[in-house]
Amino acid sequence: MASFTFRRQLTVEWGYCDPAGIVFNSRFFEMFDISSWMLFEAALGVKPQELASTFGIVGIPLVDARANFLKPAKFGDVAEITSWVSEFRRSSFDIEHHLSINGELAVEGSETRVWAARDKDNPDKIHSHAIPAEVIEKFG
Amino acid sequence: MASFTFRRQLTVEWGYCDPAGIVFNSRFFEMFDISSWMLFEAALGVKPQELASTFGIVGIPLVDARANFLKPAKFGDVAEITSWVSEFRRSSFDIEHHLSINGELAVEGSETRVWAARDKDNPDKIHSHAIPAEVIEKFG
Amino acid sequence: MASFTFRRQLTVEWGYCDPAGIVFNSRFFEMFDISSWMLFEAALGVKPQELASTFGIVGIPLVDARANFLKPAKFGDVAEITSWVSEFRRSSFDIEHHLSINGELAVEGSETRVWAARDKDNPDKIHSHAIPAEVIEKFG
Amino acid sequence: MASFTFRRQLTVEWGYCDPAGIVFNSRFFEMFDISSWMLFEAALGVKPQELASTFGIVGIPLVDARANFLKPAKFGDVAEITSWVSEFRRSSFDIEHHLSINGELAVEGSETRVWAARDKDNPDKIHSHAIPAEVIEKFG
Repeated sequence: MASFTFRRQLTVEWGYCDPAGIVFNSRFFEMFDISSWMLFEAALGVKPQELASTFGIVGIPLVDARANFLKPAKFGDVAEITSWVSEFRRSSFDIEHHLSINGELAVEGSETRVWAARDKDNPDKIHSHAIPAEVIEKFG
Repeated sequence: MASFTFRRQLTVEWGYCDPAGIVFNSRFFEMFDISSWMLFEAALGVKPQELASTFGIVGIPLVDARANFLKPAKFGDVAEITSWVSEFRRSSFDIEHHLSINGELAVEGSETRVWAARDKDNPDKIHSHAIPAEVIEKFG
Repeated sequence: MASFTFRRQLTVEWGYCDPAGIVFNSRFFEMFDISSWMLFEAALGVKPQELASTFGIVGIPLVDARANFLKPAKFGDVAEITSWVSEFRRSSFDIEHHLSINGELAVEGSETRVWAARDKDNPDKIHSHAIPAEVIEKFG
Repeated sequence: MASFTFRRQLTVEWGYCDPAGIVFNSRFFEMFDISSWMLFEAALGVKPQELASTFGIVGIPLVDARANFLKPAKFGDVAEITSWVSEFRRSSFDIEHHLSINGELAVEGSETRVWAARDKDNPDKIHSHAIPAEVIEKFG
């Protein structure tokens, strides 16, 4: 099981919130996306903008995203987001995100991403590829 | 089974797309949120901004959102989004969204929402309430 | 003076609005950006995603954007946006956007954009280029 | 002349960038909005979510926003935003924002905001009010 964990704090901004005074749902998916990039940077020591070139991939595109909204997040709330890879498969993996406010879990997010590279014979096509063992090890 | 269906078209905008040239994931959750409001307007004949006052609720807050990204959507693509309530329970319900491009399913979204109202004795508290039979009927 | 005008309607969405219940400022800049693409499509008969390849440019990047917020726009409001090129210069031009609600001007936007292409000797460099006379003519 | 200055750093996120690989214009207006709230928090020692109740206002709504885009900002760029009030008038004020990357000015933003409160006789109406001297003093 992967155990490398990345944590960051953010303060809920005015522009994130809707007329009910709480964070609009799509904003959480933005937050989780960024946390995933930061998790990989923290684990691999590779800057997000260099991830593709470092590993000869096009990126780690999202194929599934999900969130459970347990408690609302309001303007000015300080949120802590904890992210980790919950499972590596051959060419895809799952990332979990827990967003807490005042120590209480407010949103649970999960993403499935693939390790994607261009087809050597047909560069217009993108396929999932085996995740290098060295990458998986760093999360270990 | 609910069978009322709402369909709309939209053209993928420049600002929706990321450096890979495809729609950034959070934008699909924005699209689905709006489609849900429009689905309710179409089924009930009540404008979104009057839904709360018409039924004495605070709204239909989202408690779970999910999307599967099957094919990328690019700048200028014409997307058709079809939305329907797949299940009504006592006080919550599921909405499905199918986003297709050129007749091919590109993103499958699903939301769980609750019929939420203020507590009569403590207006600061919000609870899920039984969905009125007349509402469920309209979805047929 | 350019006189070709593009008009579109949109309904203010829940996710566009902030805790004051009115459209958050950045959303107007999104709306104006899209209207600019649509204005060019309407005037030139070229799809936004084909504008660059049709004219051998990289695009029409924004160098200045401004908005005056005269009246708030609320959830469910039907906004009409009217857009036109107010001035063409050698390699840059100004677009004006008037967003009205119920016939009253709510937001005035203006953009300055350049007609930008890659340097022939150094494709990493992007320069403004003379706008083709045929383009300017189409705006009347 | 006001001289209190607020500085913050942010890293450009994937989701902020468009297919040209650079930050989409509306995102800069989001950044400046947040910087304005943080500038007021830093100068007054009042949390953004308590600004309205502390001063008996509804907020500091934006009436004009503008940005000049001098250099592009790319995914992974570290941006420094410096913000200050350039002028206080009776009931309105101007905020300037300089966003720099690698020490070079990339975007200049400016906002005009008003000190707004509800009409005592007609709480549905919002008017600009004189900015308290104690507020202006704190900006130095």
